[in-house]
Parts: sequence; C-alpha cells; structure tokens
Amino acid sequence: MSGPYRGRRERVWQSVLGQAPDACGLLITSLPNIRYLTGFSGSNAVLLVTEDQALLGTDARYAVQSDTECPGIPVLLDRSTLAAVATHWRKHFVGPLAVESEHVSLAQWRRIVEMLDGDERRLRTISGVVESVREVKDPDELAALEWACAISGQALEEVISDVRTGDTERTIARRLDSRMLELGADRVSFDTIVASGPHSAIPHHQPTDRPLREGDLLLIDFGAEVAGYHADETRTFVVGEPVDWQREIHAVVLAAQQAGRAAATAGTPLADVDGAARRIIEEAGYGDHFGHGLGHGVGLEIHEAPFFSAAATGMLLAGSSVTIEPGVYLAGRGGVRIEDTVIVTEGQCSPLTTADRGLLVLG
Amino acid sequence: MSGPYRGRRERVWQSVLGQAPDACGLLITSLPNIRYLTGFSGSNAVLLVTEDQALLGTDARYAVQSDTECPGIPVLLDRSTLAAVATHWRKHFVGPLAVESEHVSLAQWRRIVEMLDGDERRLRTISGVVESVREVKDPDELAALEWACAISGQALEEVISDVRTGDTERTIARRLDSRMLELGADRVSFDTIVASGPHSAIPHHQPTDRPLREGDLLLIDFGAEVAGYHADETRTFVVGEPVDWQREIHAVVLAAQQAGRAAATAGTPLADVDGAARRIIEEAGYGDHFGHGLGHGVGLEIHEAPFFSAAATGMLLAGSSVTIEPGVYLAGRGGVRIEDTVIVTEGQCSPLTTADRGLLVLG
Repeated sequence: MSGPYRGRRERVWQSVLGQAPDACGLLITSLPNIRYLTGFSGSNAVLLVTEDQALLGTDARYAVQSDTECPGIPVLLDRSTLAAVATHWRKHFVGPLAVESEHVSLAQWRRIVEMLDGDERRLRTISGVVESVREVKDPDELAALEWACAISGQALEEVISDVRTGDTERTIARRLDSRMLELGADRVSFDTIVASGPHSAIPHHQPTDRPLREGDLLLIDFGAEVAGYHADETRTFVVGEPVDWQREIHAVVLAAQQAGRAAATAGTPLADVDGAARRIIEEAGYGDHFGHGLGHGVGLEIHEAPFFSAAATGMLLAGSSVTIEPGVYLAGRGGVRIEDTVIVTEGQCSPLTTADRGLLVLG
Repeated sequence: MSGPYRGRRERVWQSVLGQAPDACGLLITSLPNIRYLTGFSGSNAVLLVTEDQALLGTDARYAVQSDTECPGIPVLLDRSTLAAVATHWRKHFVGPLAVESEHVSLAQWRRIVEMLDGDERRLRTISGVVESVREVKDPDELAALEWACAISGQALEEVISDVRTGDTERTIARRLDSRMLELGADRVSFDTIVASGPHSAIPHHQPTDRPLREGDLLLIDFGAEVAGYHADETRTFVVGEPVDWQREIHAVVLAAQQAGRAAATAGTPLADVDGAARRIIEEAGYGDHFGHGLGHGVGLEIHEAPFFSAAATGMLLAGSSVTIEPGVYLAGRGGVRIEDTVIVTEGQCSPLTTADRGLLVLG
C-alpha cells in the first residue's frame, strides 16, 4: 500500500506542469514537502518525481527507516545525496528537470547545473507548487491535526489548574511540554511561549525564571506535534482579579478573534480575513499594538501557506488548516493573544482548539 | 557592551575578503550565523555586515528581543525582511555585496538581484566563511558547551539508574528530556534517540512503544541545548548479562572510539581521524556495518563544520568542538554507538561528555 502518497504525487505533478509545461521531472529538496509526498521523516533527503515514478535519495543512516516509511519507493543511499540523485537523472532521463526555487540553495543550484554538464537550459524553476497542494488537508492529515490539538488542549487544562503565583515561566513551560509528551505527542510543535506580566507584551517571548505575580497577565502559546502535524494554540490568563486595561484589551482581542473566525470561510480573500479582525482592533484604538499578521497555515510545518496579512493575495480554500491569532501588546505593561487552529469549510470554520477563550482568572 | 560579537564580525569580514576581495558588504541569511555574529536568536532575520557596521533586519514580533539581544546594532523591522535590507543596501552603499551561496535560496538570490536593479555584477558569492570562523570556539562558547554537556551527563546518570525492563523507548526518552529541562537546558539538542533490541541497529531510530526486554542492547543518543549550544552524547547499555556478539561489537566500537579520540589532535587531517577509528572496525570485520562518518563539529548547530569522513579534506583546529561517534550496526540484531563531544587541543582532546563508556549492565 502506498497510502495517500501516490495520489499526492500525482496532484503535485499536475501542478508542476502548470508552471513548467515541458518539465519531465521534479527535484524536491524541502524536507516537509518530501515527507508529504513519501512519508519519509529523516533529516536528509532529496526526492525525484516524474509522471509515474519516484526516487528517494538519502544516506545510510536512514536505510531501514526509508524502507519502512516509504514502501514501494526505490531508495538511493549516498552521502552526497543531491549529486547522486542529479546524476541518476542525467543517466536515466531526458528532458527538462524542474527545481523548487524557494528551497534549493544557490550553491545546490550551481551543483545541479554542473551535474547536467553545465547546461542550465535543462532546468526549470517552480515556486510554491507543493505548498499549494499541501494547503488542502486530506483525512489522514486532519486526523493527525485533531489528535495534536486534542493533546494540546488536555495538557493545558491540566497544567493551568495547578499554576500558582511563584511558579516561573520556565517551570510552567516545562510542565506543559512534559504533559504533552506523556499524552502522546512526538515532540512539541515549537518552543513553548510562557510570558508573564510585562513579558506578555513580547509576541515571541522566551520563558525566563520570572515568577508569576498577582496582577500578571499570563500568555501561553504552545502545541503538540503528532505524526509530523503541528497544533498551535494561545490562551491568555490573569492572576487575580483583572484591572480595567486588562479586561479591555482582552475583550478587544476576543472580539477580533471571533470576527476572524467568522470571516474564515472558503473563498474569502486572505486579506479580508485579516482585515475583519484587524478592523476591530484598530477601531478600539489599538491598531499600532497588533504588529503581526492574523495567522498562517499549519500542518507539516508550524508556519506554512496560506499566510494572512493586509497585503496577502489569494483566498482561503475549504479543507485548509489555519491559525487565527490576533493580539494587542502594550510594551512594558502586558499583552493578550488568543489563537485557535481551525479547519476552513464552506460555512463556519471548525476550531480544533476549543479551550475557553474568556479571561480565566487564576489563583 | 557588544560582548564577543564585534570581534567575531571583524574576523568574518577579514575572511570574506579572502573569497571576495572587492566586496563592500556581506548579506547573511543563515540564522545560526546571524546568532553567532549578533546574539539574535529569533526565527526570522537577515544581517548586513560591512567593514565597520552591522544592520539586523527582522520583523515586529522581535522588536523587543532584537533590542535586548543586540545592543548597539541598528535594527530594521519589516515583514519583507530580505527585500527591506537589500533596499537599504542599494540606498546607502556602493560596491559589490557578498551573499552566502549555501544559505541563500535561488528565489532569494533572484529577489536580491532584482532589488539591485537586475544587475548581478553587483553581487559576489562566498561559501563556508562564517562556518569556518565558527569552528574555533571562544571562551563564551566553550562555557555554554561545557554546561550543556554537564546537564546531559547528569540527566543520563539519573535516568539510567531507574531504567527497568518493561519501560518503553518513548518513556525513557521522555524522562531524559524532562530531566534535562529541569536541570536548566533551554531545550533538547535534537529528538532524543532511544533504541532498544533490534532497533539499536537503526542509527537514527525514533523512539517507539517497544518495551525494554532482558537481553536487549539499549542505545541512547541525546543532548541538552544551553544558550544556543548543543551537547551530543551516545552511550549503549545492555539489559542483563551481555552475550558474546554484544560484548564483541561493544569492545570493537569502544576501541575505535578511543582511537578516534587519540587521533583528534590539532593539525590532524580530518580523513585521518576518521581512518584511525574506521580501521579498527574494518580490521575486526565490521567495516560494512559502520555506514556513517566518524563525527562532526557541534556548536550553534547540532551538525556543523568540520565533518569527519574518509573523503573529508582539511584538518582539525585547536579549540574546535567535535563529536567522535563510531558505531557497528547488525541489522535485525542490534547495534552499538559510543559518542563524545570533545574539545580539540594541540595534545590529547578534552571530552566534555564523560560518562562511563563501558558496557554497563542494567537490571
């Protein structure tokens, strides 16, 4: 059984022909793209795809793993993986070879040209082809994302119920990470962000030994990875009764997040989804304090297509998985972000992260 | 205070001139290289270095972090980070700009060319320059590596003393990861490998729910990351009294690892260090079962220059940090790898990982 991989390769191949109509092969150097098209999860690989064949290049460390993960796909083991696959192409195929311009380095490109006897005319470049196909998730992918989000939610619920003043950011992050692993995560999706007090105004804060204090906002951005798929969720809490400015920015962000989710339907331009949430923050007077895009696709990569921003082109597709994560950050005081991973449909999107979005009071 | 960063940038700049004598600036797109030259640890950055200036490009998420981590370095915040920095170059500088060919993608290269009015003659390419400078560690780096290795060693000692038959690979990996984090690791260096029984013959095995059984070899390859620096250590244990083939391959690998460490002195060709260890494995008749290189540099990246192999050129430098990690893998039965992170000196190298290398019997 080749699982979903053969069908994925066929869809990608059709898209390649849209960008490079005379291509006879596609050389893939992006590891997430290779995992998507073969199931191979090792750290070194090059994949060759043609209309009806595939060849995986990797090295001897992955001899067993490549056999196990990619039944039916011939594997070429060579320390100089890229050169070996390019040489294989030159020996066995004729016609132009397409290369992913966003993922091949300039040095790799030059090496490939050299392998093809210095003739750049035998190459084509494509961009974003596999990423576009990856936007719409198939049932296997949705199941992995659901599982990853379920583990994340359960871990947060358990850990947050034990949080006390005096706990440090690092301690809370460690507990959350451990709990996700115990619940079956393969690893964490990214470095867990636990940001307390003024640190919550730093969108990508790294946990420190700062102890949690009465009156702090507590922002937690985290997720579990399962079978290669990443959950991504943020909730913001308050320690003790919230004061007015904390209530206010939380309410603004929550309204923006609801508006973003409501706008995230199939066929909606990406910029409009961003705008639906951003308008609420701007109208509340906090537009200058929301300096990042509304969200991003999430799947085999924690950040993948599509990307929401005011300048984004393109539209949302049914079956894509994206984050909706507006925030307001007041430097030196604190910030709020609320983020869900959701599945886009023709109607209302389905959040996979479902923890209470209200301003939960801790302690 | 600019810490060690100004000196590092000056050394890199001198090396750039060795490859591109007429360059007036260097555009850096590799995140580990940017961290090395500025201290910035965020996930999006482009760095411009000239003879006497530096400019860090990143986006608004990292406004506070870039100020904190890079005092004295001007920061350009822009979502289109690469384009913004290239445009800054075009406006404020004349003369050729050097680019890292191994790290810039073909698409980025084309974008930079476009920013420079389509004139490729205003660009130069360099390769491995920052990586070469990074080979020799300064005192700050050695301190971080020592700390990372100390945490790793202590965590292994604690966790291994509690390992029992019936424990799964995933459980053991999770305990080890948690303990490293509790002891102060910022994160783990890489996905911890815990491979039991026949799985130990898979060099890059991913932990499963297989329970540990009497008679198993147990291979653990792991490390803590501290302040960006990675520890890397492997030990192989046996559950219950070892049988002859287990004793034999462990003794062969241990002898090879000792020979590798003995050969790893400053000025020795990389291929000779690899050969010193490999010869012992070959002479014992296991040459076909050691399919990877002897080791690699380790620092801000888990795999960095230099790389040991039979085909490697170049020689070891005093003050570099490398792994020495021979292995013998018998498919379907089991394998042994013994790995240390060591600091190269003029004389005998100094291992930073010092746990007992013998065949420790568990249970």
